[in-house]
Amino acid sequence: MDKLDAIFSPKSIAVLGASTAKGKVGHDIFANILRGNFQGTLYPVNPTAKSVLSVRAYPTVLDIPDEIDLAMVILSPKLALAAIEDCAKKGVKGIIVVSAGFKEVGGEGLELENRISHICSEAGIRLVGPNCLGVINPSPDVSMNASFSARMPNPGNISFISQSGALCTAVLDFAAHRGFGFSKFISIGNKADVDELDLLKYYHKDPKTDVVMIYMEELQRAGAEFIKAVQEMTNGEKPTPVLAIKSGRSAAGAAAAASHTGSLAGPDALYDAIFNEAGIIRCNTVNELFDYAEAFSCGKIPTGNRVAIVTNAGGPGIIATDMTITSGMELAKFSESTVEELRKYLPSTANFHNPVDVIGDATRDRYENALATVISDRGVDAALIILTPQSMTDAIGTAEAIVKISKQTPKPIVCSFMGIVDVSEGVHLLQKNRIPVYTFPENAAASLGKLFLATRWLNRKQLPQFQQVFDKEGAARLIEKYRQEGKETLGELDGGELLKCYGFNILPMDLATSETEASKIANTIGFPVVMKIISPQITHKSDADGVKINIQTEDDVRKAFNDIMKSAAAYNPDAQLEGVLVQKMASPGTEIILGVNRNPNDCGHSIMFGLGGIFVELFKDISFRLAPLGRNNARRMIRSIKGYPMLTGFRGRPIADIETIEKHLVGLSQMVMDNPLIKELDINPLLVHEKGKGATVADVVISIKEPVSCSLA
Amino acid sequence: MDKLDAIFSPKSIAVLGASTAKGKVGHDIFANILRGNFQGTLYPVNPTAKSVLSVRAYPTVLDIPDEIDLAMVILSPKLALAAIEDCAKKGVKGIIVVSAGFKEVGGEGLELENRISHICSEAGIRLVGPNCLGVINPSPDVSMNASFSARMPNPGNISFISQSGALCTAVLDFAAHRGFGFSKFISIGNKADVDELDLLKYYHKDPKTDVVMIYMEELQRAGAEFIKAVQEMTNGEKPTPVLAIKSGRSAAGAAAAASHTGSLAGPDALYDAIFNEAGIIRCNTVNELFDYAEAFSCGKIPTGNRVAIVTNAGGPGIIATDMTITSGMELAKFSESTVEELRKYLPSTANFHNPVDVIGDATRDRYENALATVISDRGVDAALIILTPQSMTDAIGTAEAIVKISKQTPKPIVCSFMGIVDVSEGVHLLQKNRIPVYTFPENAAASLGKLFLATRWLNRKQLPQFQQVFDKEGAARLIEKYRQEGKETLGELDGGELLKCYGFNILPMDLATSETEASKIANTIGFPVVMKIISPQITHKSDADGVKINIQTEDDVRKAFNDIMKSAAAYNPDAQLEGVLVQKMASPGTEIILGVNRNPNDCGHSIMFGLGGIFVELFKDISFRLAPLGRNNARRMIRSIKGYPMLTGFRGRPIADIETIEKHLVGLSQMVMDNPLIKELDINPLLVHEKGKGATVADVVISIKEPVSCSLA
Repeated sequence: MDKLDAIFSPKSIAVLGASTAKGKVGHDIFANILRGNFQGTLYPVNPTAKSVLSVRAYPTVLDIPDEIDLAMVILSPKLALAAIEDCAKKGVKGIIVVSAGFKEVGGEGLELENRISHICSEAGIRLVGPNCLGVINPSPDVSMNASFSARMPNPGNISFISQSGALCTAVLDFAAHRGFGFSKFISIGNKADVDELDLLKYYHKDPKTDVVMIYMEELQRAGAEFIKAVQEMTNGEKPTPVLAIKSGRSAAGAAAAASHTGSLAGPDALYDAIFNEAGIIRCNTVNELFDYAEAFSCGKIPTGNRVAIVTNAGGPGIIATDMTITSGMELAKFSESTVEELRKYLPSTANFHNPVDVIGDATRDRYENALATVISDRGVDAALIILTPQSMTDAIGTAEAIVKISKQTPKPIVCSFMGIVDVSEGVHLLQKNRIPVYTFPENAAASLGKLFLATRWLNRKQLPQFQQVFDKEGAARLIEKYRQEGKETLGELDGGELLKCYGFNILPMDLATSETEASKIANTIGFPVVMKIISPQITHKSDADGVKINIQTEDDVRKAFNDIMKSAAAYNPDAQLEGVLVQKMASPGTEIILGVNRNPNDCGHSIMFGLGGIFVELFKDISFRLAPLGRNNARRMIRSIKGYPMLTGFRGRPIADIETIEKHLVGLSQMVMDNPLIKELDINPLLVHEKGKGATVADVVISIKEPVSCSLA
Repeated sequence: MDKLDAIFSPKSIAVLGASTAKGKVGHDIFANILRGNFQGTLYPVNPTAKSVLSVRAYPTVLDIPDEIDLAMVILSPKLALAAIEDCAKKGVKGIIVVSAGFKEVGGEGLELENRISHICSEAGIRLVGPNCLGVINPSPDVSMNASFSARMPNPGNISFISQSGALCTAVLDFAAHRGFGFSKFISIGNKADVDELDLLKYYHKDPKTDVVMIYMEELQRAGAEFIKAVQEMTNGEKPTPVLAIKSGRSAAGAAAAASHTGSLAGPDALYDAIFNEAGIIRCNTVNELFDYAEAFSCGKIPTGNRVAIVTNAGGPGIIATDMTITSGMELAKFSESTVEELRKYLPSTANFHNPVDVIGDATRDRYENALATVISDRGVDAALIILTPQSMTDAIGTAEAIVKISKQTPKPIVCSFMGIVDVSEGVHLLQKNRIPVYTFPENAAASLGKLFLATRWLNRKQLPQFQQVFDKEGAARLIEKYRQEGKETLGELDGGELLKCYGFNILPMDLATSETEASKIANTIGFPVVMKIISPQITHKSDADGVKINIQTEDDVRKAFNDIMKSAAAYNPDAQLEGVLVQKMASPGTEIILGVNRNPNDCGHSIMFGLGGIFVELFKDISFRLAPLGRNNARRMIRSIKGYPMLTGFRGRPIADIETIEKHLVGLSQMVMDNPLIKELDINPLLVHEKGKGATVADVVISIKEPVSCSLA
């Protein structure tokens, strides 16, 4: 038995702080459980009242003569602490603290929350809250409405997790209006113990939950752990789709991060990366959340992206076509025999091609025959049925036909019954049979598009991992050395050494402190060379006229050395000039950027990929993933940018060595996993040569800093 | 009196085809008018019935002894024609043909529609339909439900135009659920006479219409006329906002157009251009249409983009903040005195900065004081109020306070009352007072963002037009000459001559048919030169090794001539080689593309602008406008691409001569207005030099073809 069963399906509930005063939270929640027809036994705990709403009360939880599975605590923070100590003594299995005034107010509140959390963890009690709306389980065998909300939702197969209590009432109201049912509904508040990840794992095992919706404000656990656990859920034997709204912190986070990579990352891109990797479908609005959850609750996903549309009106058929294509699906092309078959059943004025128009005067039969015909076409992966109420329309009969056909096919069928009142009986019948139905065709088509996203997620290619050997010890030694030297920023010379340990191809180079030394270096590494000023005070070398490229002769090397030193001194007379870097000039390649950035609150690293130059600067055409990442994610992040064709031979360009980029992304990930001291890293650019010819680091900056803590915010 | 008054506010209606059989359209529409409490007089016309629903019937419309303003025709096409002949004789002022079976079925149906249309136009009768749902005017002094729909909507200040009859029922149902009121509601069907433009003009003059919503499938009238008329409406003395859903033809149209510019344009980009120029706000879903219409119905728009948020719950405040920023607005920064003032009214645990959190136990007072304080801050342009139902919440009181404050300020206030049942009284009060209110905060914020879009539209800068002198006659002579020569495609030489007439700077060039001629030309125009093969059969010159650049000497010119001729002959032995073009090499500049494409069905031209090369090819970073365009639109289309900073000195690049691009866009527009024979034109690239130094055409292709017809589809 899972410990969370005591939260969701208790046999007995004690309400600590149950009150006789109507309007008080302690009264209302007690009343909601009682009137919600809870199938177990309910015990009000109140120090003075004889009974609450006619139910015999107990002064403390310890006075209750029976075992208690779940304690609901509705008391001010200090009283709550005392009550929870009692609960631990009593041996209750789960506690929900509804009351506020804890971590969210800081100071003493935070301290009390920590103490409560400690007591529960010592006693092996699972704790929900504090500062939450409660828990609802509408299943007839439990029928528990342990919440603020007077409204008990219908039972269904969708479970909900909300970090915001305030949102819950609106969501319950909205759900009732849409005829939506829930399996389990929980408000998690401050997450002192039970958090999203616990609940996701629990919901995944729950036979009554087929879809999970989350409203998330922030994740506290490290991204990698979360991703791994959710992947097992969205991608396992019997996957459970997860849909989430994540409210971002629009400007705030992004402004904080200073470096180039950092300023592009921002916490929101990070959550996008987490969701992408975990297989969570992100929604922007509550409307979308419900639309998509309804689609997934049918339990079917299409095996391909070819949609058949059947409609009794032209206009809505066009709208559905548009949104089908916008959502990444396409209109199925029917086989000749399908078209022949449709001709048998439909009047001559009908459209026998996709979208099939069964004409305004269609009754049940035409819909039934048309749907049965198109859904059995091998070139059709899903169907979208549009019904507009017209004089001959038989909404209920058509719904019956759809239900019948849907039972005989593994292909998803979604509907738009356009109207609310006129078609409501048909809509209810569809809903009862878990066939997704929407008022407007654009919502139906968009939802079908999300089902197809899930198909793509489940069928994504799994590549064998690379076998790369890294010099982990060498890198650790280098970082320790730099740290002891007090170097916080590593340029090309030091950074290059570090990159070498993880398989990067670095240009031969060395630092010259005199023109003679420079010419010697150039002779050793071979012409042509590039020369660059090295000074801790000069970061933008070009601004200081500190860079010369394509130097072909020894004389030019000597001249360049002197020119660069002179310009740099003129540019910043106080700069400490360490010398001039003499570097072999790189062979040409496509410029890309690889970056690493420690996540907010130093919680792991994210890896960035993008095309170099204006692509990243102007079009922000970049992708992110959390470390650690393997080859599959590396490939996906490379392919996900708009400029990807630049690497695949677009308009006569050479085909770039993409496999090397994949290897380097995996290598960078390994590098920061091995060396958490790396705070930021920008390889800008990496020159990617033609396929089979590798890539060369043309410039790199790495910053090193001790991480402080780890909690994703 | 406007002739459309007979359609929307008739004093008398004859229903031709009124039937005694329940369930028949002719019965139901008659019943809907009768039971809808129509304030005028209603006459059923039926050849055999003595009365319909107890109302005395007449065998024909000619038998009615009184004047008839509006005739509703519900008869099969042939009978409809006869009935309409009667109506013309009778002198009715307006006709609505509900029945289908006309243009949309083609053949005889189309012919009958044309005849009906002709009769009406001869008789000066305005005609709505055929193939439509009817017209509704809920205003109490008219109270006309001349439609299929049994449901009469509430009166309101929003008018609706739907090209799809099927959508209307769903929209009316949906509106009723949202507590939405309408001023006028019309289904326009085949648009044999009355179309969107007629109705937009009528609605603009209508004192009872403050906002217009359109569901559009296609526009039949030329874009330019439509744009001009709608601009007068959205931008005049008393602007009427117009919101539209336009269902596109996703793939179909785009595939049809063959040329480069054409394939990018597609009908959907064209409609985007039309809507942009006309000031119409495009919506993607019916939900958006209603959300935004509700916002506009308040009659206020903000003067800036700074939003104050007041909430009693943190989570929804974050959601609202996110969507505020996503929608192009920003969080207002309060003045110190505002923060001081808030401290007076709110508990110490509240947040006194934006978003203001009045805390869960806020009653009416805290909301009232907080809203009054922030709305009077000079740094605040609009307010967004979020109310989540909690135990102390006073939804109705808070709504009253919001109504009170809203009356005292010109700044828009939008609300999210989160919940449907718990807060419904407050919501109704807000709706009654035309304060936009939404269930979820993201919808409220997105809608506020659209109000700000309207502000920007109304306040857009109007630049003085350029004074450019074009050689219109010269161009006309050239085109006539090319046409007589049977040239359909003009290359650099011919096309350049044409462009010169409209102010373009063309490189000196000439065609050489021998190496001697080539060297002579090069000497005349000066080195360095570029040389290119000229052959009608070779369009991709580079593929044929037919281009040599940066040729510096006479010897090299001679060699290049022979090499090019040889390569071209080898590439396509059948090609007719006209010679080699010798052209002065252009001085460097930023590559941009200017294009022109005749619209679908040859209805006017659209003008395209984009950055050259991969920007247009990979990122589709382009903008469109319809010709004719002036300097204002030219500037807006230049600024609207993502890559715009490439022209304004981005990362050390030179600042480009943007004014010259503006001039050339206006010039191109004039060129195609003067010469409708121009079918397509691609200047790719135009090299734009530094500010003040103009631009040079580096290549151009123009195709010439007689236009056939003109109707936007």
